[in-house]
Amino acid sequence: MASAFRPQQARIPPALAIPIPLLTKAIGNLFCFIYRFKIGLCQLTVTPDKERNIKHARKAIKEAAQKGAQLVVLPEIWNSPYSNDSFPVYAEDIDAGHDASPSTAMLAEVSGQLKITIVGGSIPERCGDKLYNTCCIFGTDGKLKAKHRKIHLFDIDIPGKITFMESKTFTAGETPTIVDTGICHDICFEELAMIYASRGAHLLCYPGAFNMTSGPSHWELLQRSRAADNQLYVATCSPARDAGAGYIAWGHSTLVGPFGEVIATTEHDEDIIIAEIDYSILEQRRTRLPLAKQRRGDLYRLVDIRRLDAHCRL
Amino acid sequence: MASAFRPQQARIPPALAIPIPLLTKAIGNLFCFIYRFKIGLCQLTVTPDKERNIKHARKAIKEAAQKGAQLVVLPEIWNSPYSNDSFPVYAEDIDAGHDASPSTAMLAEVSGQLKITIVGGSIPERCGDKLYNTCCIFGTDGKLKAKHRKIHLFDIDIPGKITFMESKTFTAGETPTIVDTGICHDICFEELAMIYASRGAHLLCYPGAFNMTSGPSHWELLQRSRAADNQLYVATCSPARDAGAGYIAWGHSTLVGPFGEVIATTEHDEDIIIAEIDYSILEQRRTRLPLAKQRRGDLYRLVDIRRLDAHCRL
Repeated sequence: MASAFRPQQARIPPALAIPIPLLTKAIGNLFCFIYRFKIGLCQLTVTPDKERNIKHARKAIKEAAQKGAQLVVLPEIWNSPYSNDSFPVYAEDIDAGHDASPSTAMLAEVSGQLKITIVGGSIPERCGDKLYNTCCIFGTDGKLKAKHRKIHLFDIDIPGKITFMESKTFTAGETPTIVDTGICHDICFEELAMIYASRGAHLLCYPGAFNMTSGPSHWELLQRSRAADNQLYVATCSPARDAGAGYIAWGHSTLVGPFGEVIATTEHDEDIIIAEIDYSILEQRRTRLPLAKQRRGDLYRLVDIRRLDAHCRL
Repeated sequence: MASAFRPQQARIPPALAIPIPLLTKAIGNLFCFIYRFKIGLCQLTVTPDKERNIKHARKAIKEAAQKGAQLVVLPEIWNSPYSNDSFPVYAEDIDAGHDASPSTAMLAEVSGQLKITIVGGSIPERCGDKLYNTCCIFGTDGKLKAKHRKIHLFDIDIPGKITFMESKTFTAGETPTIVDTGICHDICFEELAMIYASRGAHLLCYPGAFNMTSGPSHWELLQRSRAADNQLYVATCSPARDAGAGYIAWGHSTLVGPFGEVIATTEHDEDIIIAEIDYSILEQRRTRLPLAKQRRGDLYRLVDIRRLDAHCRL
């Protein structure tokens, strides 16, 4: 009967099954897939001293790795104050690398050295005459695996509370990134989480800097609903709060499980959260409450334009 | 610049602007649109005595109206115990009306008499050899304005916690309903809320009967996220809790505002919530945080199949 509802058509192209996890481990001459691993969320203080910020992030990543984290996540804009005045000054040419991008050079070095995966929060990226809010992901071999440019820029205007226009300086990214990451305001758009899920994501990482208005009202709500609706893990990482900054971050970095449950969180001070992720429970969760099989492709369809284009080119 | 992102294409057909509210009021020979009004959520006890349930609902509706409610919402399955055994026994032929459907006959009578709108929770509906979980909406003239058959049936199986298969008895509805209502498990599907919003809904009503597992974990989360993501009001109405029932309802009927904020709620006992809705703040909310203009129609599109079909027939 369910087939009359065409659940498989609720996502175009059709949703993919959860793939075998990317993380693997060699035991003797056996190659095992790792379903359980530790994630480290580094809620860092950020200062106007970029060199200090880089050294400080390096130290936190090492500490997280020593505590067993195999995947480490940094906050949104961790090398620069969060302000439209600062972004152009602190921006780096990531593609040029090395001296032109000391922040990502550090991430590349540390990830290879410690053999961990790093979701490098985000930094202002300069590319030609444009600036992006960009997240780099480095693999255990120290190589850049993916680069996500924030897709939904944060423009808000609530008189007397919060006004910020990222679009004044940043250009929006053009491509969803398959190593499962969005940045901050991207979390406000359920469609993005839905297309990541339909591409087979296990974990969505949102380095984010919510503020003292959106933080208490929406930060946890959005993480929990993206996780519950899509039955996957959501990890967020915020800068620590600096009450003297122009833009005051909410903090409260969090890991949420596929039932929408908060697995680990913290307050607003600097902290490193270490928590365990177990991909094997995703399948269990989806079997017990089979939302994907209950969707009504006869009534609504969500189209993933880029994946459809790629699909059609095949 | 924003136009390169084609936000208007993120919904197909394009999203409609918020229409002028349906509620109107004659003052002398002036006809005014009502933006502010009171809603009443009747969290009713439900017993195996159908006649008592109908009388009891009538009394609660009258009480809500006396307290100023112009729109009254009843719980999911308010005339029958919530069990697959009961549904066929308590089901009514709504289309035949009157004696064949005493529950909706009461709603028609009371709504016309009190000149209020009633979102009549839901009752088991018999239509030919099929059963539906159906919500009827009656206007201030006592006439049936819309009938919504639950689209996403509730099938869950968490060993030792909750197992329920609505699909054993009910048939799923085929049509989203434009007077802005879903039923219970429909709230789990963000796509339905998104297409209602793009059709110009101000308020989504979900008569629902979450249980002692899904209630504490998801009931408030889902309401708040549907409201915040779509920047509209969400009202839910549950039966009161009966610890002796086969299926124990969570209660906690709630009104949530367009910022995802809980405006009014209650515990699990029988209660009538009266709260004010102000449609004029929707526009303000959407101006200050213009999510609809920030959507990326170049990356994802949500297709409303029925509205597209109607659109194409024009």
